[in-house]
Amino acid sequence: MADGNVIVRQAVKEDCAQIMSLIKELAEYEKMPEAVEMTTERLEADGFPAAGSPAFNCHVLDGGGALLGMALHVFTYSTWQGRSVYLEDLYVTPARRGRGLGRRLIGGVAQWAVSAGCVRLNFSVLGWNALAKEFYRHIGAVNLSETEQWESYRISGPALARLAEAGCGHR
Amino acid sequence: MADGNVIVRQAVKEDCAQIMSLIKELAEYEKMPEAVEMTTERLEADGFPAAGSPAFNCHVLDGGGALLGMALHVFTYSTWQGRSVYLEDLYVTPARRGRGLGRRLIGGVAQWAVSAGCVRLNFSVLGWNALAKEFYRHIGAVNLSETEQWESYRISGPALARLAEAGCGHR
Repeated sequence: MADGNVIVRQAVKEDCAQIMSLIKELAEYEKMPEAVEMTTERLEADGFPAAGSPAFNCHVLDGGGALLGMALHVFTYSTWQGRSVYLEDLYVTPARRGRGLGRRLIGGVAQWAVSAGCVRLNFSVLGWNALAKEFYRHIGAVNLSETEQWESYRISGPALARLAEAGCGHR
Repeated sequence: MADGNVIVRQAVKEDCAQIMSLIKELAEYEKMPEAVEMTTERLEADGFPAAGSPAFNCHVLDGGGALLGMALHVFTYSTWQGRSVYLEDLYVTPARRGRGLGRRLIGGVAQWAVSAGCVRLNFSVLGWNALAKEFYRHIGAVNLSETEQWESYRISGPALARLAEAGCGHR
């Protein structure tokens, strides 16, 4: 199929099984397949709840039923500049790379972010992923870990549980 | 006033003017005061809208009317582990540091995150900020830029506008 027949659209609940497969493919590419605890059912429940706000938003590359890629993102907020989007995953299946599909996918997310009044599109890239870094550099992204020395931190697992248990009380 | 009289609570709309002052103090500490384009009015509109979801959540250290610190955060989503919180700012005014208030404030956020079913608390720290890094290390945070080589990227300004304009269409 020609890439001209591929469309970028917002994901629907019925896409979740294929999105889950793409998440696993990406984790393998990132050399951390064992870190994936997600399931199709959780994606459906979190992203497409019967009531309340979705926990994430997602755009997909639809090649006529088969999904060739996905971009999963959330709204965030900068205390300096306001509404922003954080792009958690951007992935195009390897056999379909190099023909501008990644560019179209992130373009769809950018269009959607700007429409929602967002002024920043943030994301994280693995330091060894030279191909991804070149792609992002080419479309105008700035590496903040280089330019402003920002480092990414996380509290999770037992440390988060301990912190939550101590809560905000006096010690 | 003794720190025992300081409470951690969720912010209300009337706190926005003082939160705005704390945002400016933090930006000066981070050596980027010119980057702040935020206003009290935007904080009020974005965080406490008459209808719809707030663009951010915020906890404050309330010392009997005067705010001594604030933690501003949003819900995010990990495709590997699910619901998460990103802590955009954590700040305690310099005169009140070193007495556990920062720990109580982030403890309140952690408690709130865990209650909401979140499994990760993510944030960014400036590489030169040794005091902050020691504080976060002490409470169990992991530096992902060191352990997993994650680097932070951003598309904003003219680059974001160009990408949004090109959108998801064919070239």
